[in-house]
Amino acid sequence: MKRRQFLRGAGIAAAASAVAAPAVAQSMPEVKWRCASSFPKSLDIMYGTAETFAKAVAENTDNKFQIDVFPAGEIAPALQAADAVQKGTVEMCHTASYYVDKDPTFALGTAAPFGLNARMQNAWQYFGGGIELMNDFYKGFGIYALPCGNTGCQMAGWFRKEIKDAADLKDLKIRIGGLAGLVLAKLGAAPQLLASRDIQSSLESGALDAAEWVGPYDDEKRGFQKVAPYYYYPGWWEGSFMLHNFFNLEAWNNLPKVYQSVLRTASGSANEWMLAKYDAANPPALKRLVTNGAQLRAFPQPVMEACLKAALEVYAETSAKNEAFKKVWGQMLAFRNDGYLWWQVAEASYDSFLIRNRTRT
Amino acid sequence: MKRRQFLRGAGIAAAASAVAAPAVAQSMPEVKWRCASSFPKSLDIMYGTAETFAKAVAENTDNKFQIDVFPAGEIAPALQAADAVQKGTVEMCHTASYYVDKDPTFALGTAAPFGLNARMQNAWQYFGGGIELMNDFYKGFGIYALPCGNTGCQMAGWFRKEIKDAADLKDLKIRIGGLAGLVLAKLGAAPQLLASRDIQSSLESGALDAAEWVGPYDDEKRGFQKVAPYYYYPGWWEGSFMLHNFFNLEAWNNLPKVYQSVLRTASGSANEWMLAKYDAANPPALKRLVTNGAQLRAFPQPVMEACLKAALEVYAETSAKNEAFKKVWGQMLAFRNDGYLWWQVAEASYDSFLIRNRTRT
Repeated sequence: MKRRQFLRGAGIAAAASAVAAPAVAQSMPEVKWRCASSFPKSLDIMYGTAETFAKAVAENTDNKFQIDVFPAGEIAPALQAADAVQKGTVEMCHTASYYVDKDPTFALGTAAPFGLNARMQNAWQYFGGGIELMNDFYKGFGIYALPCGNTGCQMAGWFRKEIKDAADLKDLKIRIGGLAGLVLAKLGAAPQLLASRDIQSSLESGALDAAEWVGPYDDEKRGFQKVAPYYYYPGWWEGSFMLHNFFNLEAWNNLPKVYQSVLRTASGSANEWMLAKYDAANPPALKRLVTNGAQLRAFPQPVMEACLKAALEVYAETSAKNEAFKKVWGQMLAFRNDGYLWWQVAEASYDSFLIRNRTRT
Repeated sequence: MKRRQFLRGAGIAAAASAVAAPAVAQSMPEVKWRCASSFPKSLDIMYGTAETFAKAVAENTDNKFQIDVFPAGEIAPALQAADAVQKGTVEMCHTASYYVDKDPTFALGTAAPFGLNARMQNAWQYFGGGIELMNDFYKGFGIYALPCGNTGCQMAGWFRKEIKDAADLKDLKIRIGGLAGLVLAKLGAAPQLLASRDIQSSLESGALDAAEWVGPYDDEKRGFQKVAPYYYYPGWWEGSFMLHNFFNLEAWNNLPKVYQSVLRTASGSANEWMLAKYDAANPPALKRLVTNGAQLRAFPQPVMEACLKAALEVYAETSAKNEAFKKVWGQMLAFRNDGYLWWQVAEASYDSFLIRNRTRT
């Protein structure tokens, strides 16, 4: 994006600096941005995260900095929101970095099979060098990114048949993409990426055997249990599913420092907002799903182990041919291993005791 | 606090509104506040949370709204920070609500024995009615509160001898307060609140048998393992330890809307900052502690069960004589039970698989 184009798009009120206004008025000009969300309004928590972020930016600046959020498809298709930012069509988008298929390194910003959980993902991003490391990589695409939302660990999705051992994954036609698709392909599955609107009918006709979506709150609205009743967990490919604000790097660099700070703080606050909202919405949705026919199933441990083994192969192969991926994954993995060393002590033992004694009140 | 006193203390620059300045200058006057932290600088993550919050407020307002943070003891002692806010000595404090011993309901804002974990605490505060419910209660004390930080699940602390069954808790002189102290007293322990500086020598002399502090990162600096080597988990009284910003209600109500929004967003962002920082700092500290002599021990399940039983008695007794406590705890408990119903599915199975397979890379 040319600087002139940014200035026009940003709508800086040149008149404001002409009057003898106090410093605050000069440092906080009127700016209008557009944000392409990768999510439809029906995924109301994900879409709502960008709206919550934009509302905080407006309110924190007395409406001087306004960001209009557009649902997927209005300015850019869901998977091309980052392209629109790169080209400068919009100043920012709210997206999952793993929608960008230009380089597998993008995927690591969102979710990694057998990677960090949601709290570790925050710890890694903010204090483990994640934000710096990922932005070193994004810089090559003209993007500056900040974490903005998380679903927590997702469900593995909806299956027409039970998965009793790893052999049941063979020839499984499952709607899934990215690194998880590569892992499942190693076990003989046939991963495919289908448009969201076609999932239901494909599961019904048998064109699909299984489909992953999000978790109880979002899945419930789709009614998948009517066509594929086995609801598997955990979604080992999305132990954390982190969204980001992608800013056009030139637009970001041209902002006054005070607005960069406002965006940083509002991104942090919205990052937490989304996870808390899912954590509040998922439990009652899970109860309703089970009442309405969903059959909860855990992947058997040998299936999980076969998937882990295949994932390690995918990581080794991808790292061998991609330096950026190797660097980021290597650092994440070390952080995850230390993270779980501590997690197993206080957190996991507290949680498991309360899971067992939940109903003793 | 009288309105005049607030206006003087807040330092609103009256002159600014006299000139024909744009709306932004009028809505964003110069304000200076003081924040009494309940923490010393040596608890650098807790103290740093207030500093991080104050820095965001200043940067997001182009330094128009400045908050000076003071460590525990400079304006008010650690446990009296909330009093200073109530009296209007300071506009705000950063504290643990359970330091306020006026009513046991205060404790529930920070931590409840066998209560919510850190993510559930956020979910409850932001979307389970927690912020509204707690502020209904705080209103009677002239306080408005927003979550601002969490340690995650704490360790149970340092013990001179092993705890092999519930009988070993009898006559145990343990440094601990609040609801957890009441629970342990039911099992025959002798809970006591000692000043921080006296813990080490009391453990050494045998005046104390055990002491709880925080978790690996903060505990390491104290060197407790030299005098009480058994490091127990989980801290069932602090599955989540949430800090808050307490604002003087009149000072809060007198702020321009834009500054209320800035404080809300900066509190949310700092709330996340602290948990992520502990999650990054605890794993390497735990490794060093174990190398330096700490003996990690899990409470045996029968001990945990005896503590749970005693906690349920404390909850029942406190609820019987305190309506506010009963209302808040009842709602938290329902939220926790649903929360763990969902948690045991995706999150806990993902975590436990990775704990078992952490080193397979």
